[in-house]
Amino acid sequence: MSATTIRGSGEQGKAVEYQVQQQDIEFLLDDVFDVQSAWSKIEAFADLSPDVVKAIVAEGGRVAAEVMAPLNQSGDAEGCQWQDGEVTTPTGFAAAFAELAQGGWLGLSGNPQFGGQGMPKSLGCLVEEMFWSANSSLYLYGTLTVGACLCIDAHGSPEQKSVYLPKLYSGEWTGAMALTESHAGTDLGIMRTKAEVQSDGSYAITGQKIFITSGEHDMAENIVHLTLARLPDAPLGSKGISLFIVPKYLPNDDGSVGERNGWSSGSLEHKMGIKGSATSVINYDGAKGFLLGEENQGLAAMFTMMNYERLSVGLQGLGAAQLAYQHSANYARERLQGRAPAGPQNPDAVADSLLVHPDVRRMLLTQRAYAEGCRAMGLYVGMQLDLEKYAGDQRAGRIGQLLTPVVKAFLTDRGLDCAVLGQQVLGGHGYIKEWGMEQIVRDARIGQIYEGANGVQAIDLVGRKIMRDGGKTLQDLLGDITATTVAPEFVEPLADVCQRLDAVTQSVVARAQQDPNLPGAVSVDFLDFVGLTLCAWLWARMASCAPQNEFGDAKRATARYFFARLLPQTLGLEQSIKAESAAVMEMPETLF
Amino acid sequence: MSATTIRGSGEQGKAVEYQVQQQDIEFLLDDVFDVQSAWSKIEAFADLSPDVVKAIVAEGGRVAAEVMAPLNQSGDAEGCQWQDGEVTTPTGFAAAFAELAQGGWLGLSGNPQFGGQGMPKSLGCLVEEMFWSANSSLYLYGTLTVGACLCIDAHGSPEQKSVYLPKLYSGEWTGAMALTESHAGTDLGIMRTKAEVQSDGSYAITGQKIFITSGEHDMAENIVHLTLARLPDAPLGSKGISLFIVPKYLPNDDGSVGERNGWSSGSLEHKMGIKGSATSVINYDGAKGFLLGEENQGLAAMFTMMNYERLSVGLQGLGAAQLAYQHSANYARERLQGRAPAGPQNPDAVADSLLVHPDVRRMLLTQRAYAEGCRAMGLYVGMQLDLEKYAGDQRAGRIGQLLTPVVKAFLTDRGLDCAVLGQQVLGGHGYIKEWGMEQIVRDARIGQIYEGANGVQAIDLVGRKIMRDGGKTLQDLLGDITATTVAPEFVEPLADVCQRLDAVTQSVVARAQQDPNLPGAVSVDFLDFVGLTLCAWLWARMASCAPQNEFGDAKRATARYFFARLLPQTLGLEQSIKAESAAVMEMPETLF
Repeated sequence: MSATTIRGSGEQGKAVEYQVQQQDIEFLLDDVFDVQSAWSKIEAFADLSPDVVKAIVAEGGRVAAEVMAPLNQSGDAEGCQWQDGEVTTPTGFAAAFAELAQGGWLGLSGNPQFGGQGMPKSLGCLVEEMFWSANSSLYLYGTLTVGACLCIDAHGSPEQKSVYLPKLYSGEWTGAMALTESHAGTDLGIMRTKAEVQSDGSYAITGQKIFITSGEHDMAENIVHLTLARLPDAPLGSKGISLFIVPKYLPNDDGSVGERNGWSSGSLEHKMGIKGSATSVINYDGAKGFLLGEENQGLAAMFTMMNYERLSVGLQGLGAAQLAYQHSANYARERLQGRAPAGPQNPDAVADSLLVHPDVRRMLLTQRAYAEGCRAMGLYVGMQLDLEKYAGDQRAGRIGQLLTPVVKAFLTDRGLDCAVLGQQVLGGHGYIKEWGMEQIVRDARIGQIYEGANGVQAIDLVGRKIMRDGGKTLQDLLGDITATTVAPEFVEPLADVCQRLDAVTQSVVARAQQDPNLPGAVSVDFLDFVGLTLCAWLWARMASCAPQNEFGDAKRATARYFFARLLPQTLGLEQSIKAESAAVMEMPETLF
Repeated sequence: MSATTIRGSGEQGKAVEYQVQQQDIEFLLDDVFDVQSAWSKIEAFADLSPDVVKAIVAEGGRVAAEVMAPLNQSGDAEGCQWQDGEVTTPTGFAAAFAELAQGGWLGLSGNPQFGGQGMPKSLGCLVEEMFWSANSSLYLYGTLTVGACLCIDAHGSPEQKSVYLPKLYSGEWTGAMALTESHAGTDLGIMRTKAEVQSDGSYAITGQKIFITSGEHDMAENIVHLTLARLPDAPLGSKGISLFIVPKYLPNDDGSVGERNGWSSGSLEHKMGIKGSATSVINYDGAKGFLLGEENQGLAAMFTMMNYERLSVGLQGLGAAQLAYQHSANYARERLQGRAPAGPQNPDAVADSLLVHPDVRRMLLTQRAYAEGCRAMGLYVGMQLDLEKYAGDQRAGRIGQLLTPVVKAFLTDRGLDCAVLGQQVLGGHGYIKEWGMEQIVRDARIGQIYEGANGVQAIDLVGRKIMRDGGKTLQDLLGDITATTVAPEFVEPLADVCQRLDAVTQSVVARAQQDPNLPGAVSVDFLDFVGLTLCAWLWARMASCAPQNEFGDAKRATARYFFARLLPQTLGLEQSIKAESAAVMEMPETLF
């Protein structure tokens, strides 16, 4: 055995493979949510056949597994390069993105008038999860493009729509959102980038933005920034922010790209993960911008994009959870180590598989329970948004808005938890780059931070959405939950958790009247309570309609695991939320 | 503003600084544990004056802050290099390690007969935390050396002790433990590395080990592997493993280093973090080894080192929690963003500090409550080990053994949690390398994996240590807790959590008689329950004896936060532990 021929155990690492959960998705569409029946009542989807939907899912899964996933680890290792303002993405990314774009995936739920496919948001949620699982760095170029389309479609002039949307839906051009400045992150009201109106009606944009995902790269002919800036006479704070379209190349009248605009990438950020995603500092040096929507109404307009991105980033967390489960379950199945507590299960081999160990099963079942529960949650919220958009269902719209921050924060928090659990299943190999698991952890971590940190989501849920209607929308939802027919074993636990969440909501609403610090003090725990309650509902529904076969056996076993081992967390959360804000406010600032 | 002069927001990142918690440590030594009084009853420590102890703490803190911490980020960025079997550590590491060694820090609690300082383990725990905080990669070279000393001191021949211990305590030579093989991690019984006796009484060691921390590097004159291997006629499994001293260079009779031994580094592992720590694949090619202890008794002997390392790795988690708290509290104090819920607190500035936001306080207080609670826990367990070793206190020894896996797993789990929370406080900056916070997360993550993954610690606690005496030692400890006089506000909550832990322990012991899967199914939740209960006890004690000044105010506020917001987790854990093992065992292996 020569020392030089062996280059480390790392080289034995198995590539992370991704496989679409086709059976689970069809089960959700057909049996749990009966979306066909829901869609048949919506004119735009009346002709959407089950076979078409399943073919879309299968083809999306193929693109994810065969086109995107093979570049995930290589993209992390290679990263993006910056040279004199030019950014080079990892080998293969441009070609893979072109395939994603040419397949129409960016416009899947987009406006058909401008090249979108007009498919339901709920279907989009299922497909987005796959792309996030397969390669989150690569899909970031897509999700920002989709979000920019939504924003331009909602707030743009007819001309802006016709110039930008076809190019963006087709992926010839990509989108980016430019909000953050080095001193202004969550607090956008204090941003300084300025916009000055020019004689031609355009605006000169000057300032520096940081953390700009896909702000500069080499994968598309043009890059369209949606940039927040202040007019000289704008009111202070968030009411004085306007939104501008600031393309890299100014479009000619014929739709081709013309003159280079006055902005450039000042550098790439050096990040913990998502290294295939080019995150730039962008310097605007009198760049030409076109007002999108009304002056000083930019933040509200930007929220069209942000709400899309928040849901999408939640699905990123779900994608990480699913990928972590698959990779660690594959490892556990093949890794022989130790013996079952009750005695050898595989006596002819040197050891049993990791699957005999109860604690390994706990780690796998936790990942699976969250991944499948959160998939159902994403689909449910997507359906509410479809009902609002296409059927004018205001109640569904309120529930969708209420749950958008829950999906963003709960799914990304569980995404990290699951990635860490998956890493733990791999033991030492989980810490070694070649095995791919540590990348899933690093990549998943960003989901909790960007698009509004999860603490911001939680205060949006409690401070804004619960408080503004005194918890009425949540009560409606809890009413839907307790009215659902589920298998007998889940009836009482589900009623119990709903009753406890309802009581604690009323307590928070009442106490917040006297105490402005109360919502923020309890918001993260409250959001977790809501997320777990939703998961419990969806697991009860899934277990109650699961077929009498192996697939159904797995559903029932995972549901029971969720109720026995994960839902009890709500007992601690309930107690914690009962604490007054003094628990966090008592410490004087000077003593931190 | 020129695009090329700005190279990214990253460059504005603040270096992570470390400051020893001198006041907290003195409070623990003097007021909480009155160690002087305890030590005065131990002959070996009777002359140890408070001033000497505090000077040791202060000087250790200086070495940590001034010598080790400045190399933490640069060591991560530079990493270790491998070339033809030679390993180069990051710039400055060798000089810093020499300073650590020459200061006598490796031998702080070591045997004075061979150059150690003979200080209490409890003091060692406090000092180790600092070194882990300051630079975990660098301190790994030290902690493995200390562990090797303990093992040789306990199991070596007089000649082995005199040859190796002085060189190791002085840091001229360093130690490493070589256990893992690519197919044998947790399950050491299936290892294949072989040892064949030679005519001179030494053994020829042949095989490959992986994940060998400090296995090869350029910081010391010699590297002493403690290597597990099998004799040709050894019994199968863990009863057929022997332990060998396998130095890089064979020692001459005069103590100088002689012939190069027959092993070498085959490569470095590519890791998520602790990149300044050189982790090798080691190939033994008939290397000369010297039996340490008895043939086939190697695993038991190795546990002398492993038990030390487990406690030390727990302190690594504590170190990460403390560092994360300091760095994120500094950030929160200086970062102006948003306004307090009750209105501007700093109206002359563009925004208030992050400290006005209740959820930011929650994140900081969680880190602080765990860091300070876990520091007290480490000290408490160190004291039990001192009482056993120096005063023959068997009861203290049993408690120390019971809690060793708790310290290892609970402190490293909380270490990651706190690092992730600290990163969240920094928002986007937390994800950017130059700010140093993401490194703390990557570095902390290994603590949960190595030295026996945390799931292994949990099954050691429940399956071995609780089951072997039916929970008697834990009951003794709970008796100590409930017998402690604490401030009135903590009496009832502390009694309640002890009563619930006692009941759930009895339930686990009873159910495990019928169900071999039960301990493993509930062990991780059970360990967390024990850890939180211990923290509650120690927080109640700290709050109850804290002085009437700002330091005491902070202690009381943090204690109240712990009881109101963190201890409630035990309600969920209790419920989860009540579940039968079927919750994890029901899923058929084929359906994962």
